[in-house]
Amino acid sequence: MLKGKMVIGQSGGPTAVINQSLVGAILEARKHESITGILGARHGLAGIMKEDFIDLSSQPVAQLEDIANTPAAALGSVRLKPGKAECERVFEVFKQHDVRFFFYIGGNDSAETAHIIAEMAKAADYDFCTIHIPKTIDNDLRVTDHCPGFASAAKFVALAFMGDDRDNQALSGVKINVVMGRDAGFLTAASALARQHEGDGPHLIYVPERVFKPAQFQEDVRKQVAEHGRCVIAVSEGIVDDSGQPIASSGEKDSHGNLQLSGTGALGDALSAMLKAALPEGTRIRADTFGYLQRSFPSVVADVDVKEAREVGTFAVHHAATSASNGSVAIKRLSNKPYRSEYFITPLASVAREATALKDVYIDEAGNDVTQAWLDYVSPLVGELPRMGKF
Amino acid sequence: MLKGKMVIGQSGGPTAVINQSLVGAILEARKHESITGILGARHGLAGIMKEDFIDLSSQPVAQLEDIANTPAAALGSVRLKPGKAECERVFEVFKQHDVRFFFYIGGNDSAETAHIIAEMAKAADYDFCTIHIPKTIDNDLRVTDHCPGFASAAKFVALAFMGDDRDNQALSGVKINVVMGRDAGFLTAASALARQHEGDGPHLIYVPERVFKPAQFQEDVRKQVAEHGRCVIAVSEGIVDDSGQPIASSGEKDSHGNLQLSGTGALGDALSAMLKAALPEGTRIRADTFGYLQRSFPSVVADVDVKEAREVGTFAVHHAATSASNGSVAIKRLSNKPYRSEYFITPLASVAREATALKDVYIDEAGNDVTQAWLDYVSPLVGELPRMGKF
Repeated sequence: MLKGKMVIGQSGGPTAVINQSLVGAILEARKHESITGILGARHGLAGIMKEDFIDLSSQPVAQLEDIANTPAAALGSVRLKPGKAECERVFEVFKQHDVRFFFYIGGNDSAETAHIIAEMAKAADYDFCTIHIPKTIDNDLRVTDHCPGFASAAKFVALAFMGDDRDNQALSGVKINVVMGRDAGFLTAASALARQHEGDGPHLIYVPERVFKPAQFQEDVRKQVAEHGRCVIAVSEGIVDDSGQPIASSGEKDSHGNLQLSGTGALGDALSAMLKAALPEGTRIRADTFGYLQRSFPSVVADVDVKEAREVGTFAVHHAATSASNGSVAIKRLSNKPYRSEYFITPLASVAREATALKDVYIDEAGNDVTQAWLDYVSPLVGELPRMGKF
Repeated sequence: MLKGKMVIGQSGGPTAVINQSLVGAILEARKHESITGILGARHGLAGIMKEDFIDLSSQPVAQLEDIANTPAAALGSVRLKPGKAECERVFEVFKQHDVRFFFYIGGNDSAETAHIIAEMAKAADYDFCTIHIPKTIDNDLRVTDHCPGFASAAKFVALAFMGDDRDNQALSGVKINVVMGRDAGFLTAASALARQHEGDGPHLIYVPERVFKPAQFQEDVRKQVAEHGRCVIAVSEGIVDDSGQPIASSGEKDSHGNLQLSGTGALGDALSAMLKAALPEGTRIRADTFGYLQRSFPSVVADVDVKEAREVGTFAVHHAATSASNGSVAIKRLSNKPYRSEYFITPLASVAREATALKDVYIDEAGNDVTQAWLDYVSPLVGELPRMGKF
C-alpha cells in the first residue's frame, strides 16, 4: 500500500469553482491514513520547485468552505511548461518530503505536466501516484463529457447575453460581445442559452472551429439588422482567418507561446471597425470584451458545476488512496432528465497536451450559429436561468 | 382634481432595476380613478411623437413582476434631446389623447426633458402634471441621496473586482478594469467594496473628478507592484487629462454630443500601453472594460435598490394622482443601521440638466483612492457581499 505525503497544486486559468475541487481533495485526504501529510503548493509547479508549501491538514472546515465558494485559485496558479531541469527539481523536492501522491488541478497543459512527472517516477522506480483533476472554462479536455468550471462560466455568459440583449432591445444597434475561448467555442456557444423569446439575441455566433471571413461577417450582420433592426453577436476571442491567423490580438505571447487574446479590447474594436465600414453611417455599433469576469465572478455559479467540481476532487483522492494508479478524472453523463453523472479514471496520456473542440454537430451549416443538439448538451449543465419578462 | 390619461416612458441608459420603477408606477396607477388610462411610450419621446403606445392597464400582475425583475428598459429607451419642434409634437399628442400625467424615468437629461414639457404645459395653460422618476447607474443626480439603479451596478462592480482580484492573486500581474461613469466616479469608487483582507485590490482607483496624469499613474502603479507584487486598478471610463480631454475614446459622438466611451476597449488598451512603457519588460499587463454588463446583468441586484426603484415609481404616481404638482422624486436617507430611507418631491429644475459628482470628502488626498466616508455612504446601499475565503 502506497503511503506518504501528498502535494496538491492548481495551474492555468482560474475558474469560479476550482477551489471546490481543492477543498474536496483536502477533506477526502484527511480521511486516509495512507496520506501522511497534505501540502498545498503555492502557484503550482513554481511553488513546488521553491518548496513553497502550505500545510493543509488542519484548517477548520468553515474556512475551507469559504475558500470553496471563492473563485480563482486559492493556492495561487501558474502558467509554466516545465522542461527537464524543472521536472528533476520537482522530483527532488517530492523525494525529500516523502511525497507519494501528486494532484494537479488544471487543463490539458496541466495534465501534460502531470503525465511527464508520472513518467519520471516510473523511470526512477519511485512508488508514486499522480492524478490530474480537470478544470477549465474552455471545456476542451478530451475524454470527459465536460469540464468542471465550464458550466459556471457558461452561466455567466448566458446571463450576460440575456441582459445585454435586453439592453440592445431598449437602445437598438449592433452589439459585439467577445467571449473567452482560444481554440474552442464552447463558451461562446453558451451565449445561445440567452434566447427565450422570438427575436432574442445573440443573432449570430462565431466560434474558432470555423474560419472567420470578414466579408461574410459583414453580410451576416447586414441581414440580421434588416430583419430585427438590431443585431447582437457572440464572437470567440480565438477566431482566425483562412490562414489560421487571429483576427486581432495585442501581439504579446505567454510562456506557452500563445498569443495574448484576453485582457485587451483589440478584437472587439477591430470587428466594430469592420462593421462601421459595412453598415449605414450613424449605425450604433458597440463592442464589449467580457474578459476575466467570465472565469472569476463570485456568486454566479452553476449548481451542477459546484457539485461536480467538489466531487472530482474527492474522487481523485479516494482513487489515489485506494488504488494508487495514475490517471485523470473524467465525467460521464448518465442522464439529462434528471441530470446525473458519474466519475471515472482515464489515462493521463488520453487527456494531456491535445485539446478538443466543439463537435460539428453543434455548429450550424452556415457556421454562424449553434444547433439544438448543442442546447441539449449544455442546458442541463448550466441549469435554470431567470425568466426574462416582456410586454 | 386633475383627471385624464397618463403616459410613462423610459429614457437614457438602462439599469438592472428600471423596470421595477415602471411596474411600481403601473400598479399604483391602476388604483387611481383620476388616471383614466395608462399608456406606455415605446422608446420614450420617440414613441410619443409617433403615438407608439402600449396600453398598460390590463397586463396580469405575474407578467409585470417578470418584467420588473428583468434588466434594461422594457418599454424601450431613447437618447433624444428634444428641440422646440419635438416638444410641440409631444404636446399635440398629449392633448389628442387627453393625457394629463407624464412620468419620465431617467437621469438628468430626462429630467430636463420633463422640465421643458412641464414649462410648455404651463405656458399653454394646459392642466398637466409631469413627474421625473430618477434612474441612473451613474448616481449623478442632484438633490437625491442616491439614484435607483446605482446600487445594483455598484454591486456588480464590487463582485467583479472581488473575483478579479482573486484571479490576479492567483496569476500575478497588473490588471486595469475600466468602469462606466462619464463625468462621475461613483461606480468606479464602488470597486473599493471588493476589499476584505489586507492587500486586496483594487490598489488604485481613478475617478473623473480628478485630472488623470499619466506620469503619476505610472509612478503609482510602480509603487503598488513593488509593495504587493501585483496591482489591480479601477479606472472610470471618463478620466480626462489636464486640458479636459478624454485619455482615449473611439472618437464617435452620440446625439447629446457626448463622446462614445463605452462599447470600446480603447481606454483600457491605451492605459496598458502606458504601463508597458513604465514597467519591466515581461510584466503581465491586462485590461478589461466592464462595459454594458454593469447596467444590465440579470440576477445581480442590490436588495435596497430593488425596493427603492419600485417605490420611487409608486411614490411618483401616488404624488401625481393626489397632488397634481410637478417634480422629481428624490430619496432621503434616514439611517444606516438599519438602513432606512424616505421619498420626497424636489422641483424639476433642481435635478434637470446639471449633474453632480463625487464629493471631495469621498476621494483621498492623492486622488488615487476613496475614503472611509465613501465606504460608509455606499455600503448600506449595496448590502451584504459574499465572503471571500483565504488560506
